[in-house]
Amino acid sequence: MDWIVKDEKFNKENIVNNGNKFITGNGYMGFRGTLEEYTKNELVACNLAGLYDRQGDKWREPVNAPNGIFTALTVDGKELGVLREEPLEHVQVLDIMEGVHRRNTVWKTEKGKVTIKSQRFVSLSDVHLICVKLSVFTEQSCEVVIKTGIDGDVWDINGPHLENYSFEKGEKYIKLAATTQELKVTVVSAEICKRSFAAQETVEESEKGIFRYIRFYADPMTEYTIYKYVSVYTGNDEACNIVAECLRSAQKAAEEGYEKNYEAHVAKWKDRWDISDVLIEGNDDDQLALRYSIYQLQIIAPVHSDKLSIPARGLSGQTYKGAIFWDTEMFMLPFFLHTAPEAAMNLVNYRIRTLHGAREKAKYYGYKGAFYAWESQEDGQDGCSDFNVTDVFTGRPVKTYFKDKQVHISAAVAYAIWETYKFTVDDRLLLKGGAEVIIECARFYYSYAYFKEDKDRYEILDVIGPDEYHERVNNNAYTSKMVYHTLEVALETLDLLLKKYPREYSQLVSGLNLSREEVLKLIKFKSKLYIPQPEEKTLVIEQFSGYNALEDCTLKDVKSRLQDPKEYWGGGHGVATTTKIIKQADVVLMLYLFRNEYSDEVKKANWQYYEPRTEHGSSLSPCIYALLSCDIGNEEWAYPFFVKTANMDLTGESKQFAGSIYIGGTHPAANGGAWMSVILGFAGLQINDGEISIKPELPEGWNRIAFKVILRGEKYFIDIRKNSTTSMTTGDIIKIS
Amino acid sequence: MDWIVKDEKFNKENIVNNGNKFITGNGYMGFRGTLEEYTKNELVACNLAGLYDRQGDKWREPVNAPNGIFTALTVDGKELGVLREEPLEHVQVLDIMEGVHRRNTVWKTEKGKVTIKSQRFVSLSDVHLICVKLSVFTEQSCEVVIKTGIDGDVWDINGPHLENYSFEKGEKYIKLAATTQELKVTVVSAEICKRSFAAQETVEESEKGIFRYIRFYADPMTEYTIYKYVSVYTGNDEACNIVAECLRSAQKAAEEGYEKNYEAHVAKWKDRWDISDVLIEGNDDDQLALRYSIYQLQIIAPVHSDKLSIPARGLSGQTYKGAIFWDTEMFMLPFFLHTAPEAAMNLVNYRIRTLHGAREKAKYYGYKGAFYAWESQEDGQDGCSDFNVTDVFTGRPVKTYFKDKQVHISAAVAYAIWETYKFTVDDRLLLKGGAEVIIECARFYYSYAYFKEDKDRYEILDVIGPDEYHERVNNNAYTSKMVYHTLEVALETLDLLLKKYPREYSQLVSGLNLSREEVLKLIKFKSKLYIPQPEEKTLVIEQFSGYNALEDCTLKDVKSRLQDPKEYWGGGHGVATTTKIIKQADVVLMLYLFRNEYSDEVKKANWQYYEPRTEHGSSLSPCIYALLSCDIGNEEWAYPFFVKTANMDLTGESKQFAGSIYIGGTHPAANGGAWMSVILGFAGLQINDGEISIKPELPEGWNRIAFKVILRGEKYFIDIRKNSTTSMTTGDIIKIS
Repeated sequence: MDWIVKDEKFNKENIVNNGNKFITGNGYMGFRGTLEEYTKNELVACNLAGLYDRQGDKWREPVNAPNGIFTALTVDGKELGVLREEPLEHVQVLDIMEGVHRRNTVWKTEKGKVTIKSQRFVSLSDVHLICVKLSVFTEQSCEVVIKTGIDGDVWDINGPHLENYSFEKGEKYIKLAATTQELKVTVVSAEICKRSFAAQETVEESEKGIFRYIRFYADPMTEYTIYKYVSVYTGNDEACNIVAECLRSAQKAAEEGYEKNYEAHVAKWKDRWDISDVLIEGNDDDQLALRYSIYQLQIIAPVHSDKLSIPARGLSGQTYKGAIFWDTEMFMLPFFLHTAPEAAMNLVNYRIRTLHGAREKAKYYGYKGAFYAWESQEDGQDGCSDFNVTDVFTGRPVKTYFKDKQVHISAAVAYAIWETYKFTVDDRLLLKGGAEVIIECARFYYSYAYFKEDKDRYEILDVIGPDEYHERVNNNAYTSKMVYHTLEVALETLDLLLKKYPREYSQLVSGLNLSREEVLKLIKFKSKLYIPQPEEKTLVIEQFSGYNALEDCTLKDVKSRLQDPKEYWGGGHGVATTTKIIKQADVVLMLYLFRNEYSDEVKKANWQYYEPRTEHGSSLSPCIYALLSCDIGNEEWAYPFFVKTANMDLTGESKQFAGSIYIGGTHPAANGGAWMSVILGFAGLQINDGEISIKPELPEGWNRIAFKVILRGEKYFIDIRKNSTTSMTTGDIIKIS
Repeated sequence: MDWIVKDEKFNKENIVNNGNKFITGNGYMGFRGTLEEYTKNELVACNLAGLYDRQGDKWREPVNAPNGIFTALTVDGKELGVLREEPLEHVQVLDIMEGVHRRNTVWKTEKGKVTIKSQRFVSLSDVHLICVKLSVFTEQSCEVVIKTGIDGDVWDINGPHLENYSFEKGEKYIKLAATTQELKVTVVSAEICKRSFAAQETVEESEKGIFRYIRFYADPMTEYTIYKYVSVYTGNDEACNIVAECLRSAQKAAEEGYEKNYEAHVAKWKDRWDISDVLIEGNDDDQLALRYSIYQLQIIAPVHSDKLSIPARGLSGQTYKGAIFWDTEMFMLPFFLHTAPEAAMNLVNYRIRTLHGAREKAKYYGYKGAFYAWESQEDGQDGCSDFNVTDVFTGRPVKTYFKDKQVHISAAVAYAIWETYKFTVDDRLLLKGGAEVIIECARFYYSYAYFKEDKDRYEILDVIGPDEYHERVNNNAYTSKMVYHTLEVALETLDLLLKKYPREYSQLVSGLNLSREEVLKLIKFKSKLYIPQPEEKTLVIEQFSGYNALEDCTLKDVKSRLQDPKEYWGGGHGVATTTKIIKQADVVLMLYLFRNEYSDEVKKANWQYYEPRTEHGSSLSPCIYALLSCDIGNEEWAYPFFVKTANMDLTGESKQFAGSIYIGGTHPAANGGAWMSVILGFAGLQINDGEISIKPELPEGWNRIAFKVILRGEKYFIDIRKNSTTSMTTGDIIKIS
């Protein structure tokens, strides 16, 4: 049962949350865990990766495809759906081993029970394909109408994004095409519906949808099953004729039949799990939560394309504009690096590909180099608005500085490229754009920095660190340290290229117009860059200049000041703004990333200082506290943070609002954080210069963890056990290919 | 009638405004224009200059003395006062020529009319003294009780400030003493009440007051007059025994009698007007408004003490914490420099005396030198809170950056010292602290500035300019230019001292530990300091970096977005914050101050660009627009701004709230601005190196302006006339002593 997520009762209040929790996907699209009879009111979404649209002057956001699985049941003239009629029994299941969504609902009618059963999967073997198997079963004979087809009236946060709807009814298929508003990209969906029973079938079009009406008299105690093969293509796909391809994909699937498609899909999942599964013995809840986290990462991994990355809310909808944040580089990349290096490369390649957007952003703000977007969309343009929060008291948009001041994203990109390079030792990464990006990031920071003459140091001013509640701060320890790291790897990259690839080096520096003088400036910048240091007595590192002077109150104090539960805590005058209460790991994140440079005493002092002052209002926070405590050997501190992280999308208890803006959805950064907590935290896996080592400490109750990693083409199996009598933890690292 | 301010009808709604409008004072104290029967509910205040108190953790603010003029009338058992009984006739008068407040109120009672008449003045000849003459007159005989004495239950915004009340009833006097909460400063008031009619008199104490009850049967058609001599002393006075002095002052006044005191007081006023009056022929309203502005400046001038300066709301109450703002240096000092150089010296001396406070503030924020307080109290400490506005929607205090980022105040202090020095050529000003202050201000800016290496320039970052709505901006043109000016005069001061006073120079630089190296740094700082320049095509100077990117909407747009009339427009997310709408003259102020350095084209372009974007939400704004337009010869642009400025305290139509915080009171900066508009604007008076010149242009309807100025001990009479037939304006400058 450690592979099954289940909800055994229908509850209207869980509809939104279950949409996230029971999601299926394949990196090309994510299908929310909604029931077949739902419409946009229940936030049905077939969210497409990398296709964005802007409607008027609203936020740009990803496009949801038409809903090809829509199916509604009418029995003896009465519509039966969970929203219409309270079911007698209802169970919704997500099988994360096979990536399959199931539902089973029973209603009591005057003529006895009526049961609907379905299962569906978003195919891993054909990323354009969704397959549905849906059966109706009645205790007595009755007249049944199954309305099924393609519902193009999709959920949008800032839409509508689709227009120019056109419909086609073929001999066997139905098809819906539409175009996006801004860039006129075609989105097309075809559906073929198969059945093995006789029925009268008509097709009708509505304003935005095309539907079959399948009418038949059901015999008692007989199962009537339909199979739907739904294909989705967009103008962003590389196919020459996407409409034809779309139809071909549905036709091929229909010809092969449901079972064959299912097998192919499950086989792909088996491969994925083979390398990525992590076995936890001793706690079934933790086992499920971790697997579920890995599942979430798998369904959004852009395995099929090197042009995509992963949005902050995965493919669970349009929240956060479907944009790529630093979450990917800092919280998801490690999982992919260790288990799916090609996917990791794709993620990094997305940043290399979108360098132009980062350069444009830097130029816009008067800087040089590459200023990566806070919310990066398809070409690296920043989807972030200047007003990201709505004041709950006035309904007015609130100016936030996420877009212009959260400069640490460029450093995260450089960090990710460098981590990937160290992991893969693949020089092509640097040669094919990676080096250029790193250098452009370093340049950006030089143009952003100021020199404080009377202190003989450079400072990074006016930024937002990971803790977003405190805007426009100076000398944020995390940001400054990351800038330093960027400079370090930029200089190392230059050295490396000069030595190994003198020709490419010359091309690069001449292409970038990078003079020796400019390099010397970067060297001086690095040597005199101010990074806040541990305070002598307390060992605490001040999060930013002036943090120590803020009001030192408790989280409870700050909460008690809220007058509206949806109030935004930060910005101009949120309840946390003038206090020491922070949203998420900031100094602690820095200490984790650069853990080899700080003593355990410093790490411990800062963990203890900042943890009580941290809201963990971001899904990026708890895992970092888990990881740093593992690093200093305090797995008992770490465990509750692991649990919180790994269960975030299972419980759905994360923050749903920033101001009055809905920010719900899945939390891939937390999913990645859960994996990191176990593999890099409890197992203490370290890879240095291609050498694997572990430093395991298992939480209480855990007897074993076992997992695989890929390193430079080799697979390793790591098996860690705790001896129940001696309580000694030992582990093996076994090369298996 | 050009000396009389009058209100001929009682209207409850005017009570607060009339308190400001009919104010009397003498620099030691200001007595609000309230009626004798009023109490703290009607905002009675005898506001004391330079005595501050803090109650708990509330704002520090000036202390109001007990109200020694309190008098309430009871006729035949019925209390008669404007609040109790609608009067039949009521007139309130302020005679600004003599500095006298009068009221005359008639009630209709069952026994016919009852009249109360009073006049009072806050003495210019004894700054501790207030004299009151109050008469009762009834048409029929009736029983009268006059309750009069000292009401210690004073109005406080953030009080109570007085405690430990003690009362004394002497043979002829009554006395009330109390101490302030924070510093335990004694405040004492003595009252002697004289009358020439027989009455039964008792004295009673209340919790915070001591009152006489004067009972008598009034004959019909007979005037019964009492004379009150009220004296106020505090522990801040230099007297050895303030209690004895206080009593002596009242006794002396009582012995001399009302008329003699009155004559001495009026004689002093005559002297004041002799030098400061400005004659305007052709428009009586303008004549009165300007005289009234001068009156306001006279009643708050700290002529008697070189330890005081003038608070931003004069002595009209506790608004703005009774603190000294840059208003004094930039908007009031010119009037005093030209008409009362000793008072001007006192103002400047206040800043020299409080250098320590400015140094402490710099130190607190991690800077060197002198960071003058945004709201300076008695020792230069900053009365400004980190939260200066209350959010009208939540009732929560809003963090503002006035205190920590409005750094231009140090430059205003240096500017004022230098202006005073140029005016007086009195080297002692520099030798006795002025030079030290200027250098410490320059040092402060060096430690505040950052060097932008890739642009090879210093920048002044993270400030608030005069326009307070836009907080934490970079390269505010006004601030940067003022910093430049500070550096300029600091270096000039050093040169001057080195040449003329080598010994004092040595003492100064060694006392300040000012090395040659540091001076070279200041020179480099000055030469590479970035000051925003006129844009090539438009000639407009960007108010700060990024101003041009703000929303360019109209004042009307911004107003239409208000959801509450008391909303604060600026700060974290006020309605003006993200727009180009500014509170007050900013670039235009810079252009006025440095008018010799910019072309008329630049001045005109900026005036035209910024004026429609200026709310004039500060009393410091309209006069600057008037002055700059006079400077470029557009007196028709200037005139309405002069009218607005000069009438601010007469109409009481200025802003009353910042957020939900009451900011009402008088506006000495506007009063000073009105004087500047006429003398430096329309008359075009200029003094360069001791040479007086004029460049007059009179507004339409004005035929003549005539005034005096004092320059370096000499008096000049300037007489400007417009020939009604030729419309030619000519003027004479006549040396009269």
